[in-house]
Amino acid sequence: MSDGRKRRLSGCPIDYALDFFGDRWTLLVIRDLLFGGKRHFKELMESPERIASNILTARLKKLEERGLIERRSDPDNRKQVIYTLTDKGRDLAPVLVEMVRWGGRHDPNSLCPKSVVTRLTRDNERLLADMRAGMADAVRTVKARARR
Amino acid sequence: MSDGRKRRLSGCPIDYALDFFGDRWTLLVIRDLLFGGKRHFKELMESPERIASNILTARLKKLEERGLIERRSDPDNRKQVIYTLTDKGRDLAPVLVEMVRWGGRHDPNSLCPKSVVTRLTRDNERLLADMRAGMADAVRTVKARARR
Repeated sequence: MSDGRKRRLSGCPIDYALDFFGDRWTLLVIRDLLFGGKRHFKELMESPERIASNILTARLKKLEERGLIERRSDPDNRKQVIYTLTDKGRDLAPVLVEMVRWGGRHDPNSLCPKSVVTRLTRDNERLLADMRAGMADAVRTVKARARR
Repeated sequence: MSDGRKRRLSGCPIDYALDFFGDRWTLLVIRDLLFGGKRHFKELMESPERIASNILTARLKKLEERGLIERRSDPDNRKQVIYTLTDKGRDLAPVLVEMVRWGGRHDPNSLCPKSVVTRLTRDNERLLADMRAGMADAVRTVKARARR
């Protein structure tokens, strides 16, 4: 819940759900690592919610300290750092999936297609594939709107 | 995530999970209304996390404004106010259940019995009954420890 601070929602059901319960940044970073296929700081900065770089730095540090993510050199480019979820971090997938269901059901401005929300089954593999596809669709929608 | 603020966790897996992602109070209030059978301000104040009365007042107000809870006179005592979840609020149950699974799996200090975590099925009615029973067990455990 945003406690009076006005902010623009991204249309992501997880972002919508987070507006009800607290500091959204941590779970949005996990969302991007889990469903968005992101690994680099720069990629995480490009999400539609426009996280500030100092907040992203602080959240990544905390997530690493708490054992939800790992920080290491990119095997493709040793000068770059990549972030990946640990098993404990990946284990948050069902929490995020239920937030998608809830946000998708109750947010009139959701960019998440209803078909994705209703298709979210309890089959984890299919569910993760659907989430990734749904998120890719949503990103395309946002980019198309920005171009208009 | 608590961003440096030290605080004592209650042993509830939801409290543990909330320590990773944000302002815990909103979801803890929803937890108590959903699984704890609480309806009065005084009952909500008695939870082991020791919410401050001004924070509870602010959270209840926001939850009402956002359509997650309703505030009305207690039919048993017209001078008293009770808080109940709306359908939108009750719909958060699966999010909390997945937080219980996650916290129960990863928190070494969880007071939630492993049997409750492993028994959390996808059958919502049974799941809610299990959650309520698990929470009642946890409350008894906390009280028994306090007495020692």
